[in-house]
Amino acid sequence: MLLRQRKSGLCSVNYDAVFEKAIDRLHAEGRYRVFIDILRNKGAYPNARCFAGHNGPKPITVWCSNDYLCMGQHPKVISAMEDALHDVGAGSGGTRNIGGNTHYHVELEAELADLHGKGSALLFTSGYVSNDATLSTLAKVLPGCIIYSDELNHASMIAGIRNAGCEKRVWRHNDLAHLEELLAADDPEAPKLIAFESVYSMDGDVAPIEAICDLADKYNALTYCDEVHAVGMYGTRGGGITERDGVADRVTIIEGTLGKAFGVMGGYIAADQKIVDVIRSYAPGFIFTTSLSPVLVAGVLAAVKHLKASSEERDAQQANAAMLKKLFADAGLPVMMSNTHIVPLMVGDPVKAKKISDTLLAEYGVYVQPINYPTVPRGTERLRFTPGPQHDETMMRELTDALVEIWERFELRVAQAA
Amino acid sequence: MLLRQRKSGLCSVNYDAVFEKAIDRLHAEGRYRVFIDILRNKGAYPNARCFAGHNGPKPITVWCSNDYLCMGQHPKVISAMEDALHDVGAGSGGTRNIGGNTHYHVELEAELADLHGKGSALLFTSGYVSNDATLSTLAKVLPGCIIYSDELNHASMIAGIRNAGCEKRVWRHNDLAHLEELLAADDPEAPKLIAFESVYSMDGDVAPIEAICDLADKYNALTYCDEVHAVGMYGTRGGGITERDGVADRVTIIEGTLGKAFGVMGGYIAADQKIVDVIRSYAPGFIFTTSLSPVLVAGVLAAVKHLKASSEERDAQQANAAMLKKLFADAGLPVMMSNTHIVPLMVGDPVKAKKISDTLLAEYGVYVQPINYPTVPRGTERLRFTPGPQHDETMMRELTDALVEIWERFELRVAQAA
Ligand SMILES: Cc1ncc(COP(=O)(O)O)c(C=O)c1O
Ligand SMILES: Cc1ncc(COP(=O)(O)O)c(C=O)c1O
Repeated sequence: MLLRQRKSGLCSVNYDAVFEKAIDRLHAEGRYRVFIDILRNKGAYPNARCFAGHNGPKPITVWCSNDYLCMGQHPKVISAMEDALHDVGAGSGGTRNIGGNTHYHVELEAELADLHGKGSALLFTSGYVSNDATLSTLAKVLPGCIIYSDELNHASMIAGIRNAGCEKRVWRHNDLAHLEELLAADDPEAPKLIAFESVYSMDGDVAPIEAICDLADKYNALTYCDEVHAVGMYGTRGGGITERDGVADRVTIIEGTLGKAFGVMGGYIAADQKIVDVIRSYAPGFIFTTSLSPVLVAGVLAAVKHLKASSEERDAQQANAAMLKKLFADAGLPVMMSNTHIVPLMVGDPVKAKKISDTLLAEYGVYVQPINYPTVPRGTERLRFTPGPQHDETMMRELTDALVEIWERFELRVAQAA
Repeated sequence: MLLRQRKSGLCSVNYDAVFEKAIDRLHAEGRYRVFIDILRNKGAYPNARCFAGHNGPKPITVWCSNDYLCMGQHPKVISAMEDALHDVGAGSGGTRNIGGNTHYHVELEAELADLHGKGSALLFTSGYVSNDATLSTLAKVLPGCIIYSDELNHASMIAGIRNAGCEKRVWRHNDLAHLEELLAADDPEAPKLIAFESVYSMDGDVAPIEAICDLADKYNALTYCDEVHAVGMYGTRGGGITERDGVADRVTIIEGTLGKAFGVMGGYIAADQKIVDVIRSYAPGFIFTTSLSPVLVAGVLAAVKHLKASSEERDAQQANAAMLKKLFADAGLPVMMSNTHIVPLMVGDPVKAKKISDTLLAEYGVYVQPINYPTVPRGTERLRFTPGPQHDETMMRELTDALVEIWERFELRVAQAA
């Protein structure tokens, strides 16, 4: 412990002890996180190398990547990034306003606006920052605004709403009656914003977007839809659930990431030109930060363009997700029957979830991270599998067999499907 | 305007009008921001292409990049990124905890911890996020914490302190007597954190770090130093002002960016292992976001290693900054005499600052962005030049001549040095 003990005679806060206690709490609850040190092998995904234990790299199969379609290794993406690297260099060198607005940024924003049929789009350094910056800024621009937030909304939306400092109402997950009850109870004159996700990534269920928009119309509310786990994945051009369901024009602001199905890194919103201009002009989280590296932006441009034209990756991924769910269910494993590409296996205990994960990695070369609180509610700890287009049937059967063996060994309950 | 007018009969908020007014305010104050659309030419920096006006690319000279040492175009950085791109692909595919912890991340954190002589370091997606996430989390882990913030602290620190929801005291810029007055007035038992920058990037002045640390010891406070504009730039290994002044071990947390002198993108903190573990385990802005692309991390690794061993870039940059300040001063231009690498020219009016900048770009092919409120206080609008190692004397003389011509043409005051 390097932190110096300060002895001024005046005061007695022991910082060291406070920090130590904070960490001890996590160990006691079995949710202290150990990061698994890996390198993916380009061209051989889901194959990777694991450096855990520091006995040199060991080959593993990755089952928990959010690079759902493996676009992060797509030849078009790689070569676009290589070209940008050689054309302009590594970083943007500035904020969007001061030197960091490259032609790539301008082009990608146009591409994303088009993807969602919106007037404009705006890039952020991550999906987290796009949620945080947009929600907190919107509420400040709309004095007296009330935000209605689905109870399972992602931490980044919760952060944005909290940082907005406005009134907040939490509605029960996907519960339209509860949402309407809350909307009806508030001042009709107050500005309102309904914030939700399209695909909830830990359970894999989908929001009733059209019905939410109907309520928004009825109560004169704006709508904000996080499509982070859906962009690139749904709709004939990869425009997300809002495209698939034909409701993109009814959602005021669509938010997405560039780090999951698009395979790179970054985030964005797409909306009416005026709203985008307001966020661009007022959001500190957008204004006061170095813009995305043009290398990343070039890669995303290639990924978005490719997935607008090709459904092959989406179709293969959906087929594999369906197959894995069926294999798990047939084997009596407690798979949660989502109707999306997410394959969660319920464990219900943080220590057991970590033990299963550790065993899979050590004995089977299978990498799947345990999902514990605060990512999911306590008591719903789980393993979350994300088969990609490249996970073949043999891999899936081997995985299922491994899980069945471990489930028996640790005497875990079977068929707990939620 | 695409935003649909909602007519429910019940309510009357006109969202469109509110957004329009927010934008109109910016136009009225002359601080509506127009992003200049550029591409740098790798290998030919500070040369670039400008796409403004959409008449095809026009060659320009960039004078406002924060890629201070041009490391974003350094052959070692480019080739490290290329290797990573081919070895592992474009993105990390997950959060640090779920699939996104690559061997590059682990290595870079070790390298940065070593750079600052600290036990540990932690990467974030940007310097903005590192400030926001660390400050807001620290204050939550330390109940009753009071944060003492220099009045010129960057927006990202202000955001972190605001989002912490704790008590905040603002001390006059670099004013130790005022800081002590505030510290002495508070409960000796309260946890305390003093937050400041080393190099203030808009004025170019430097904090009295050692004296701040003396006060911290006296009042049992932790210290947090934003070295965003100093890492890579000062100290024999590029460890920042804390290295140059030999006080790195006295600062509790050093924060930096990977997007300025290191030329790429991202941010970090370096501190005692226990503090880093607390932030790693509790900060939503760290936990719930896709980790930095391994391609970026590989590039930064090369940049940090290079600048640890080479002072050539730092020395050339300092020499050029000194030369430009002298040329400006000799010509009677109102240069602010910083003792760092920043060369600010005071204008004092947002409309004039923008007009000078527009004229430089249109007539002289010189790109320097006007710096307006809220980046600097109203009435101190300025142009901010950042000559790099590659801006040669001819370029500087041409720039000075252009400015003198424009200053005369617009009848601006001279020699207003602050
Ligand atoms: C629903 C949701 N929104 C936002 C984010 C943040 O996106 P990013 O990883 O690009 O920061 C995530 C996950 O990372 C997410 O699951
Ligand atoms: C003092 C200071 N801190 C933090 C930041 C944010 O760093 P980044 O650009 O990496 O987000 C900046 C500027 O961008 C800055 O000037």
